[in-house]
Amino acid sequence: MGKGMECSENSQTNMKVIQGEAGYVLEDVPHLTDYLPDLPVSTFPNPLQSNPAYAVVKQYFVNVDDSVAQKIVVHKDSPRGVHFRRAGPRQKIYFESDEVHACVVTCGGLCPGLNTVIREIVCGLYHMYGVNKILGIDGGYRGFYAKNTVPLTPKIVDDIHKRGGTILGTSRGGHDTSKIVDSIQDRGINQVYIIGGDGTQRGASVIFEEIRRRGLKVAVAGIPKTIDNDIPVIDKSFGFDTAVEEAQRAINAAHVEAGSIENGLGLVKLMGRYSGFIAMYATLASRDVDCCLIPESPFYLEGKGGLFEYIEKRLKENGHMVIVIAEGAGLDLLSASLQNTDLKDASGNKLLPDVGLWLSQRIKDYFSGQQKMVINLKHIDPTYMIRAIPGNASDNVYSTLLSHSAVHGAMAGYTGFVVGPVNGRHAMIPFNRITEKQNKVVITDRMWARVLASTNQPSFLNPKDFIEKEEPQTQIQLVDGGKY
Amino acid sequence: MGKGMECSENSQTNMKVIQGEAGYVLEDVPHLTDYLPDLPVSTFPNPLQSNPAYAVVKQYFVNVDDSVAQKIVVHKDSPRGVHFRRAGPRQKIYFESDEVHACVVTCGGLCPGLNTVIREIVCGLYHMYGVNKILGIDGGYRGFYAKNTVPLTPKIVDDIHKRGGTILGTSRGGHDTSKIVDSIQDRGINQVYIIGGDGTQRGASVIFEEIRRRGLKVAVAGIPKTIDNDIPVIDKSFGFDTAVEEAQRAINAAHVEAGSIENGLGLVKLMGRYSGFIAMYATLASRDVDCCLIPESPFYLEGKGGLFEYIEKRLKENGHMVIVIAEGAGLDLLSASLQNTDLKDASGNKLLPDVGLWLSQRIKDYFSGQQKMVINLKHIDPTYMIRAIPGNASDNVYSTLLSHSAVHGAMAGYTGFVVGPVNGRHAMIPFNRITEKQNKVVITDRMWARVLASTNQPSFLNPKDFIEKEEPQTQIQLVDGGKY
Amino acid sequence: MGKGMECSENSQTNMKVIQGEAGYVLEDVPHLTDYLPDLPVSTFPNPLQSNPAYAVVKQYFVNVDDSVAQKIVVHKDSPRGVHFRRAGPRQKIYFESDEVHACVVTCGGLCPGLNTVIREIVCGLYHMYGVNKILGIDGGYRGFYAKNTVPLTPKIVDDIHKRGGTILGTSRGGHDTSKIVDSIQDRGINQVYIIGGDGTQRGASVIFEEIRRRGLKVAVAGIPKTIDNDIPVIDKSFGFDTAVEEAQRAINAAHVEAGSIENGLGLVKLMGRYSGFIAMYATLASRDVDCCLIPESPFYLEGKGGLFEYIEKRLKENGHMVIVIAEGAGLDLLSASLQNTDLKDASGNKLLPDVGLWLSQRIKDYFSGQQKMVINLKHIDPTYMIRAIPGNASDNVYSTLLSHSAVHGAMAGYTGFVVGPVNGRHAMIPFNRITEKQNKVVITDRMWARVLASTNQPSFLNPKDFIEKEEPQTQIQLVDGGKY
Amino acid sequence: MGKGMECSENSQTNMKVIQGEAGYVLEDVPHLTDYLPDLPVSTFPNPLQSNPAYAVVKQYFVNVDDSVAQKIVVHKDSPRGVHFRRAGPRQKIYFESDEVHACVVTCGGLCPGLNTVIREIVCGLYHMYGVNKILGIDGGYRGFYAKNTVPLTPKIVDDIHKRGGTILGTSRGGHDTSKIVDSIQDRGINQVYIIGGDGTQRGASVIFEEIRRRGLKVAVAGIPKTIDNDIPVIDKSFGFDTAVEEAQRAINAAHVEAGSIENGLGLVKLMGRYSGFIAMYATLASRDVDCCLIPESPFYLEGKGGLFEYIEKRLKENGHMVIVIAEGAGLDLLSASLQNTDLKDASGNKLLPDVGLWLSQRIKDYFSGQQKMVINLKHIDPTYMIRAIPGNASDNVYSTLLSHSAVHGAMAGYTGFVVGPVNGRHAMIPFNRITEKQNKVVITDRMWARVLASTNQPSFLNPKDFIEKEEPQTQIQLVDGGKY
Repeated sequence: MGKGMECSENSQTNMKVIQGEAGYVLEDVPHLTDYLPDLPVSTFPNPLQSNPAYAVVKQYFVNVDDSVAQKIVVHKDSPRGVHFRRAGPRQKIYFESDEVHACVVTCGGLCPGLNTVIREIVCGLYHMYGVNKILGIDGGYRGFYAKNTVPLTPKIVDDIHKRGGTILGTSRGGHDTSKIVDSIQDRGINQVYIIGGDGTQRGASVIFEEIRRRGLKVAVAGIPKTIDNDIPVIDKSFGFDTAVEEAQRAINAAHVEAGSIENGLGLVKLMGRYSGFIAMYATLASRDVDCCLIPESPFYLEGKGGLFEYIEKRLKENGHMVIVIAEGAGLDLLSASLQNTDLKDASGNKLLPDVGLWLSQRIKDYFSGQQKMVINLKHIDPTYMIRAIPGNASDNVYSTLLSHSAVHGAMAGYTGFVVGPVNGRHAMIPFNRITEKQNKVVITDRMWARVLASTNQPSFLNPKDFIEKEEPQTQIQLVDGGKY
Repeated sequence: MGKGMECSENSQTNMKVIQGEAGYVLEDVPHLTDYLPDLPVSTFPNPLQSNPAYAVVKQYFVNVDDSVAQKIVVHKDSPRGVHFRRAGPRQKIYFESDEVHACVVTCGGLCPGLNTVIREIVCGLYHMYGVNKILGIDGGYRGFYAKNTVPLTPKIVDDIHKRGGTILGTSRGGHDTSKIVDSIQDRGINQVYIIGGDGTQRGASVIFEEIRRRGLKVAVAGIPKTIDNDIPVIDKSFGFDTAVEEAQRAINAAHVEAGSIENGLGLVKLMGRYSGFIAMYATLASRDVDCCLIPESPFYLEGKGGLFEYIEKRLKENGHMVIVIAEGAGLDLLSASLQNTDLKDASGNKLLPDVGLWLSQRIKDYFSGQQKMVINLKHIDPTYMIRAIPGNASDNVYSTLLSHSAVHGAMAGYTGFVVGPVNGRHAMIPFNRITEKQNKVVITDRMWARVLASTNQPSFLNPKDFIEKEEPQTQIQLVDGGKY
Repeated sequence: MGKGMECSENSQTNMKVIQGEAGYVLEDVPHLTDYLPDLPVSTFPNPLQSNPAYAVVKQYFVNVDDSVAQKIVVHKDSPRGVHFRRAGPRQKIYFESDEVHACVVTCGGLCPGLNTVIREIVCGLYHMYGVNKILGIDGGYRGFYAKNTVPLTPKIVDDIHKRGGTILGTSRGGHDTSKIVDSIQDRGINQVYIIGGDGTQRGASVIFEEIRRRGLKVAVAGIPKTIDNDIPVIDKSFGFDTAVEEAQRAINAAHVEAGSIENGLGLVKLMGRYSGFIAMYATLASRDVDCCLIPESPFYLEGKGGLFEYIEKRLKENGHMVIVIAEGAGLDLLSASLQNTDLKDASGNKLLPDVGLWLSQRIKDYFSGQQKMVINLKHIDPTYMIRAIPGNASDNVYSTLLSHSAVHGAMAGYTGFVVGPVNGRHAMIPFNRITEKQNKVVITDRMWARVLASTNQPSFLNPKDFIEKEEPQTQIQLVDGGKY
Repeated sequence: MGKGMECSENSQTNMKVIQGEAGYVLEDVPHLTDYLPDLPVSTFPNPLQSNPAYAVVKQYFVNVDDSVAQKIVVHKDSPRGVHFRRAGPRQKIYFESDEVHACVVTCGGLCPGLNTVIREIVCGLYHMYGVNKILGIDGGYRGFYAKNTVPLTPKIVDDIHKRGGTILGTSRGGHDTSKIVDSIQDRGINQVYIIGGDGTQRGASVIFEEIRRRGLKVAVAGIPKTIDNDIPVIDKSFGFDTAVEEAQRAINAAHVEAGSIENGLGLVKLMGRYSGFIAMYATLASRDVDCCLIPESPFYLEGKGGLFEYIEKRLKENGHMVIVIAEGAGLDLLSASLQNTDLKDASGNKLLPDVGLWLSQRIKDYFSGQQKMVINLKHIDPTYMIRAIPGNASDNVYSTLLSHSAVHGAMAGYTGFVVGPVNGRHAMIPFNRITEKQNKVVITDRMWARVLASTNQPSFLNPKDFIEKEEPQTQIQLVDGGKY
């Protein structure tokens, strides 16, 4: 570290923070040498130096001091702000090819591009670093303490990127940190690639802490996966583009169905339990949507300015309409609604509150109950049809870069990090920065305004509420919300 | 009519039946001259005779005696059997171009190709017969007695075949025969093209009877529409091919979801309230399906040879499975199940029995209740996404020929008929032959056997039941069931 | 054979012809017992009898006398005409499961559905008849006398139907009958499945003759493959539907390109060296085409009624146009054009006459040379992009039935036949009936008239030529040409 | 402008450059007030302030001082570098709604998303700013001095984004600045939206200069269009994503064709006359490509390390291969090759040098001439099929933001600018920055190295050449080249 910088480590988050002049802040990621001082000082030259593809010039290697700025909209006098360590190949690495024994695990729900990420971790390790001991953990975290593993070679993964799903299988939960680290130790694994959402990455963070506590030379790299795009800091998550593209089919079907019948109402439920990015972008891309409901923007059904009023107005004006709702939107209304009822199935099980079905029923009840008008509502839930397709070209390229960034980072001895693009440049980001909060649609941001402007839907908001909350300090931050 | 033939008219069905030698039977369709003896005997030459495209040779015109055989698998000594009048342009027609005032109406649910049918009635009338007074009735049968109509010209319909749905709008029911015929009379309409399913065609049949009763020179032509392919006599209905193709997406998604998780079970509900053709062909085309459930083949859930046993077996063997269920399958089980319960929603409405949701719940209950195994069931209902797409190339060509057959028939003075291919040749068929029963999957036919053989699912049948029913006379008939 | 029939064998074509009353003719296929009189009279029961799927009723089995009528449009007094032996499972078979050693070979160009055919021969033999010795011949006919073969099992072929191309590889030519039959004998193969076009099936015919000459118990079954649909007798060939569907993309692109620029002319070259079915159906399905040129309909470029005149007229009227040309159209003009020139490439090779490039150049030359008008021509050749895709759902089902028909026929001891649907029912057809001529678009048929009517292109014909050729006898035959 | 800044205007480029502390540079765009000092000082409030969607909070409006950093990879001590003025709605605008008379023109080749850009300029002006006088110029620049124009309203453009091409028509060239500005003046147009590539934008720059010279209150906004992604400064151009996605079809077809035949070689020619981005990204996304040839990376055919040697090696190892070539690759070789020959067509016209056809021929000649091996080469040119499709979801969203940025900028009185995202944030960029050079693949950058690593193709380079050129100063700049 150069002069004029301070380095502090926040003991709670274990985040290494480096500060420079003019407000420059680098939120750094851990390195094996942080807790393994006895690691041989002599590192190894990167085999890419002799790779015909990478050997041409030194510029292929990332400068050890490169960082990526998080903030890109600035004023001339504004502080430089937070930066992250740039991802990419380093001249010096901390693992020899023969020494590496890597494993890959996929956790949580399906997401387009999962197989591309697996493929490229394997191909990246093999072709760039000559690594050939790579294990696939079968069926998510719990696969660590099961007996089956899947050997992974370039030949085995050759065309998996053209198929949806994950060849490794996945599962939710099943996270016993101690047993997992035991298994890592027992199998002699020294690089762990963990593909999953925020819950999975929180797990990865704990696994990393346990590995550090035990003093193992094991690099832990997370590849953030969320079809909902709800992971903060990074520009977008893999599979998101594909999901928005595929959602167009459902919206288009809803539009055709609605438009072919009197008072037709097409209701499409899209993914997004905590954030409405898919709903928002699918709405913007489609331009056929009359109302987009997302978790971040509360709404209400009845009364003036409510959803029912708007539906009635649109149907009277236009004869049909399309509503897109994210699965997590209106959960407060849904919960309230379920408290007073006892919706159970034939076996006495409480029916799962599916917001699409619930809202469909409420709309039908309202319009039939009030004898106001006969409506024809069609509910479409394309969730599984979206999740299960392979990544499109854009996500394939993106997933490739993500995987390679993870491989470069682990080979260079970094650990306890996730990878992802920040303002278009791939960076390594400390676990806690992506797990401590979620990326959400900022409804006071221009992107959401664009949605409102394109649908003409009510904002369901009282402007005064927001003007009071306005804080000049965060103004720039907020307008930054829209990633595009 | 030549010698050696008998012509009888069944007063109940109004079907004209002509019989010839060697067991030849022609089930003929009505003609305007049947009840309008005063119709000027001088007919008009078909303008196609001077159309550069059709003028080259006389063979473009159908011989007045051409008929199409319904039975195609024969023995050397078998009777010739039932025939239908061949569709196609006639040398002589019964309407002058200027005289024609046609209308088109679409009824019932959406089906890929609807817009192509509309387009080609309009373009057929205009380009082949010089007709330019064509009205679109807005919103199904009830549109006849509403005030709005849509003028239809080649320019207006130019690219509608690339869009799903129907530009005319549709509705169910709304059938007041008397008011409809009043409207036809009032507007001076003399050709009525009615696109719809069996209910719609029953309505068309009654409209035709009323027109005949009133002695109007109005030709009524039906174009049978059913995405389910459940209309008898004709080879297949338009939109069916497209539906089977599009269903592959859902099955593929179910397969990917199921295969990515332990004990994954993908359940796809497809269209088919009374017949399982879409489910059957989608299963055969996909080859990823482990069980196909259709209305024609009863099944049971519990006990030996039941569905639950089979699911358990497949999951243990293979780790995952895909079930396809037609919407009308297992309705007996569903009804029985709903009698003992009181499944109501928050507003006290009885929940609609959706067989996909119901079966999903029953399977979940069984496996969770018995503590037998943890399963991961994903339910996909692609119905509206399938219905709303435009026709594929095959359906576009087919819909074009259907429409043109209807136009040629009406111009030639035939009425009270539907059009459709019989063994690959377009024919005109009396209404009652396609409305008096439904086309169903014959589960003792080879096509269904192919499904069972490809899925390895249980037949849920006791072989003895069937052997007893077997009647030598109908044997050939039965093996004919498979249209392909 | 029953009374009242005659059976003759044409020594030149080796076709077995059986005649019955009322003009019934059965063109039968050879059977192993025809030339192997010593074949044990005791045949084996079909294992499908105990297959749960097929066992339910006897009707699954084809009656030994079932035949399929070729002619379907009839008059009441017309003769019954030509029939073919119906395909399907027989109660008695001539091979035991353990005894069968099958091989599969694919020859000629790619066609959507090839892998489905391979898959279903393998799965059909294995699942229906318990056969597990199946070899794939690598790289077409010449693979018979190469050393590599590919073992084929249901597991190996499990998902190949979702991929384009052929997993067996293919080639053209390489047909040394004697060496091939030697190889069949040496390897102990007794069922040969040959997938290929008319050239390939002519080869198969000769292989069959040689096998018969040597008196081998080897069944030879052909599965006709031609993306062009130019094989006679059968309703259509596999892959054709998919090709027409995929061709829509190219036509649509040509339409968009042409419509976005002044005097835009989109020219799409489609497959069809000897027949224009793909061009014709793609034109009918698309409805965006202004001119469709096929091998069966000669055309000329210059002068009155010529193509240039029509192009000029359309561009002046409409501002843009789309031309579809089959690769074999206008070859006479092309040949004449090449005689007077010396179009060679840099290495002195004569440039291959590609009709799309040639016509593009001629059109450009005409309009630039005459200073008549500036045109913007875009030439699109989607051939390889069409050929290489997997079969669509319709072709997948169809290919499955084809393969199973071939398997049923070979197991039942039939040989020297190809399979295919005749008026919608699968039949076994003697080799010579499908190789002695080609299926071609009948330009005096209504289907071609529909094309002319939809494009409004000139017929390039003198009506008088055709009226003279008209023969009453063949009239019905001609109107039969359109298979749909 | 605040203290501590310098503002200079480069008289040659007319670029306004503002400098701040710590190396901050703002390359600003012109404003109407720059040359219209008499423009009424009183501006108008942005009507978005009372738009329900935008009214909620002030943060929807861009701060007048917001700028976007071009450089995002930094060191702690590096200078802050070049910035651009942020795009977006301003609180104060310089046009009243009633006053605006806008026009839109599209120039050059087709590109997916063109219609979305047109749609969103119209809808943006109409819905956000209440503008309803909008003209479409027909057929590119030359349409300015033709008589036809197309009125543009939200209704007219409602679903054009689902169609490929441009509804306005396009053309190349036709740029008579004086006549165009006359036409603008005559028609009373005061906002000009110009959609086109670098040539078009150079034209727009000259139009802007002439307008400034004449002292007209006319804002000129450029929307950069290039399917090739060869426009510098901006992150990517609209249509590029869609093009890369669609190119996968062609590559996949080439892969299937090549893999189905012995020594199969699939050669795909993609767009990219001056830059190889489409070829590069399509190669990375597909992972089926063995060699990617782009204009930026010279290659040679014969001898050691040449393309022929590599082809021979790959075919021997793998039996087949896929080559992707950008249309501008190898033009030096092609030119040299054409000098020595006289390749003319039947009419004596010099044949256009198409690199795909040329390379195909050279490869065929080499392998046939040397009698080395029989190869089967299939050449695919999907160019027009790619260009003509509508934008995908990602490009639709992106095109929407582009259009709105242009509208916001023009309404706020900025002129002589193009819009585009810089590191993910939309900015206004002076014309000269995007026309003075082209964005090219930096072959010493990691993105190209990733291609080489994934294909294993030779680099065709001598490493020493590059090491000598290496300059420490530009090192970071170079590694920045990869936008992803």
